[in-house]
Amino acid sequence: MGISGRVSRRDELPTPALVLDVDALDRNIGAMIARTAAMGVALRPHAKAHKCVEVAQRLYRAGAVGACCATIAEAEAMARGGLPGILLTSCLVTPDSIERLSRLVASGADISAVVDSALGVDLLGQAAENAGRRIGVLVDIDVGVGRAGCVEIADIVALAQRIRDIPQLEYRGVQAYWGNLQQVMPFAERRSRVEVQAERLRSILAVLREAGLAPEIVSGSGTGTHAIDGRLGLFTEIQAGSFLFLDSCYGSVPTSDGEAAFEPSLYVAASVTTATRPGRVIVNAGLKAFATDNGKPMPMRGAPAGAAYRFMGDEHGALDFDGATPPLGATIEFLTSHCDPTVNLHSAYHVVSGESVVDVWPVVGRY
Amino acid sequence: MGISGRVSRRDELPTPALVLDVDALDRNIGAMIARTAAMGVALRPHAKAHKCVEVAQRLYRAGAVGACCATIAEAEAMARGGLPGILLTSCLVTPDSIERLSRLVASGADISAVVDSALGVDLLGQAAENAGRRIGVLVDIDVGVGRAGCVEIADIVALAQRIRDIPQLEYRGVQAYWGNLQQVMPFAERRSRVEVQAERLRSILAVLREAGLAPEIVSGSGTGTHAIDGRLGLFTEIQAGSFLFLDSCYGSVPTSDGEAAFEPSLYVAASVTTATRPGRVIVNAGLKAFATDNGKPMPMRGAPAGAAYRFMGDEHGALDFDGATPPLGATIEFLTSHCDPTVNLHSAYHVVSGESVVDVWPVVGRY
Repeated sequence: MGISGRVSRRDELPTPALVLDVDALDRNIGAMIARTAAMGVALRPHAKAHKCVEVAQRLYRAGAVGACCATIAEAEAMARGGLPGILLTSCLVTPDSIERLSRLVASGADISAVVDSALGVDLLGQAAENAGRRIGVLVDIDVGVGRAGCVEIADIVALAQRIRDIPQLEYRGVQAYWGNLQQVMPFAERRSRVEVQAERLRSILAVLREAGLAPEIVSGSGTGTHAIDGRLGLFTEIQAGSFLFLDSCYGSVPTSDGEAAFEPSLYVAASVTTATRPGRVIVNAGLKAFATDNGKPMPMRGAPAGAAYRFMGDEHGALDFDGATPPLGATIEFLTSHCDPTVNLHSAYHVVSGESVVDVWPVVGRY
Repeated sequence: MGISGRVSRRDELPTPALVLDVDALDRNIGAMIARTAAMGVALRPHAKAHKCVEVAQRLYRAGAVGACCATIAEAEAMARGGLPGILLTSCLVTPDSIERLSRLVASGADISAVVDSALGVDLLGQAAENAGRRIGVLVDIDVGVGRAGCVEIADIVALAQRIRDIPQLEYRGVQAYWGNLQQVMPFAERRSRVEVQAERLRSILAVLREAGLAPEIVSGSGTGTHAIDGRLGLFTEIQAGSFLFLDSCYGSVPTSDGEAAFEPSLYVAASVTTATRPGRVIVNAGLKAFATDNGKPMPMRGAPAGAAYRFMGDEHGALDFDGATPPLGATIEFLTSHCDPTVNLHSAYHVVSGESVVDVWPVVGRY
C-alpha cells in the first residue's frame, strides 16, 4: 500500500508514522474532564501539544471550553475548525501576528489574547479596531518561570487598567502558568513549590480585586500540576495538554499523588531497514522523527525484549537488544520522550484502534 | 505585511523564519564545486541537508552531478523538480518505499539506490520489474559507523554479485560514508581515523575488482572530511551537504587543514516578544524552531553584544545579555547548531540578499 492509499492495519503503516491510539486518547480525555469537573475548574487544553483540529473538537465535544494556542497559525487552524473559546497564550507584538489576529477576529473567531506590555495592549487595541470587533485580553503574569509575563504587581495592575481603558478591548483576567514546576519530583516537592507561587498569585488577585479589576478568567496549569492547581481556589481553568498523550517523561513522573490517571496514547512507528549485526537493527526514524530535547524514545510494540534506542542521525536510529533479531521491514513503535515537539515533526496522525487504522488527522500550524 | 503578502525587507519577515543568505550560499556552492573539481571527484550533494528543489537545482547548474536523498519523499520531490542523478542513500525494504520507488522509476526519474541485504536486492529487482525500467544499485558498506551497510567483505561481494545477477538491476558500485568522523577534532586526528577506514575500503574495492565487480561509483564523504576523502583516490563522488549552510557546529571545526572554505548562510529569525526584565528578552523561537540535538542557537544579527540563548519551551527562547534591551518586536537572527534538522522544522526558506528578501523556496519532503 502506498502513501496515497488508505492503510488499514497498524503494522503496515508507511514509516516513520505518528500513531495515535484513539481509545487511549478518549480515556485520557474522559479522565481529565472528570478530574477538572470534580475540582470545579474548566478545561481549555493547549493545542500546542496536539496541533490538531480533530483532537481539539473531540475535547470540546467532551466538555472542554475551547482551546489554548501558542501561535497565531494554531489559532487560525482552530478557528477554521470551528473551535470556540480560543485563547492565544503567547504575547503578540509583531506586525504579522497582530494583523493576522485582527483578520481572525474580523472573521468572527471567538478569540482572546494575553499581553505583558503596554505596547502589546495598544497593538491589540489597534487589531480590534481594525477588525471592528472587541478582543478579550488577559494580563500574562510571570509566576517564576522567567519567560513571558509581568513580574511586578504594579505592572500587572497598570496593564489591566490600560486594557479596561481601551474601548475596543475587554479585560478578561490573567494568565499564570508555572511551566517550570510541571515535572518537579518528588510530588510533595512539586506541591510545596506550587504553593509558594500560588501564595504570590493569591496576593496579586487580591490587589486586582481591590483595584476593581477582578479577573473573570484565571488561566494556567499543566498536566504535571493540574491536580494541585485545580484545588487552589485560584484558577478558573486548566490549560493542560500533554495528558492527551502522556509521553515517557510524564510517564515517569506522577501527575497526581494518587492513582495514575492517564496512559500513553502516542507513538512513532518505524521500520527495521538494516540487520547486518547480531543484537542490533537500524530503524528508519531518527532526529527528524523524534524530539531530542528530553531524552530517547522508548521501544514498545514490536521491539525485542530489553531493546534500547540510540539516535543515529537525521533519519535513522539503532536498536540494541539481546536475543532474536526482528526481520527486515518489521514495524516497531516507540513512545516519545516529549510529545509536543515530536508531533510537530509529523504532518499527520495515523489514528488507530487496536490493530486497525481508522483515520488520518492532519497536524496543523507547523512553521 | 501578512504571511500571504511578499515581504521585501529581511528585518520585517514574519517570525520565526528560516533565512537563507543566497550570496553566501552561492559562494559556498562555488567553493565546493571548485574544491571537488580540483580533487578530481564529482559532487552529488545531500538533499537531506537542504530538502529544497531550488537549492538542488542551483547546485546542479553549478556543476553537481545530481542529488543524494535520504528518503523516498525527498527523491520524489527532487524528481518532480527535474533533478537527474538522484541517489537514494538509505536502504529501502518497506512495501511503501519500494512501491513508491517503482512508481518514480516508471515515471522516468534518473534514480539509483543502495542496499545492504539480499532481501533489499530482491525488492529492488521487483520494483524495477514493476516499473519496466532498470534501477542502478550500489552496495552500502559500513565503514565504522555501525549504522546501515554491510560489515563483512564476503557479504559485500555476495550482494554485488546478486545485483549483477538480476537483469532488472544495474550494478553501479558502492556507498561508504564515515559519518562518525565528520567532526573529529583536531583535524589531524580526523585525518588519521579516516585513513584507517580508507585502508579497509581500499581492500574491499580491490576484492570487488578481483571478483569482476569493479565499482563505477564510489560514493560517500561529507563536509567535515571531504578535503581528506577527495584526495584518497577511492571516491568518485562526494555527498557533502552541510557546507551549503555551515551551522555553528561546523563553524567550530575546520573543514580542511587550510583556510576556511565556507561561511554561514542559514539563520532563524525571531522577534522579541517580551522585555519585562533587565538583561533579558524573550524571543518567539524555541524548540520547534531550532534543532536541539547539538547545542544552542548562536545569536547574530540584531542581538545585543554578548547575548546568549536559552531554550524556554516549544515556542520561546530567552536571550540574556549585558547592556541595552532591544525593543519589543525587534528581529534577531540566530545561527543554528545543526542545520539539517533545523531546516526540517520549517516549511520554507526566506531567501535574502543583503537587506532584501528576494524569494521564498519551499522545504520539501518533511514527514
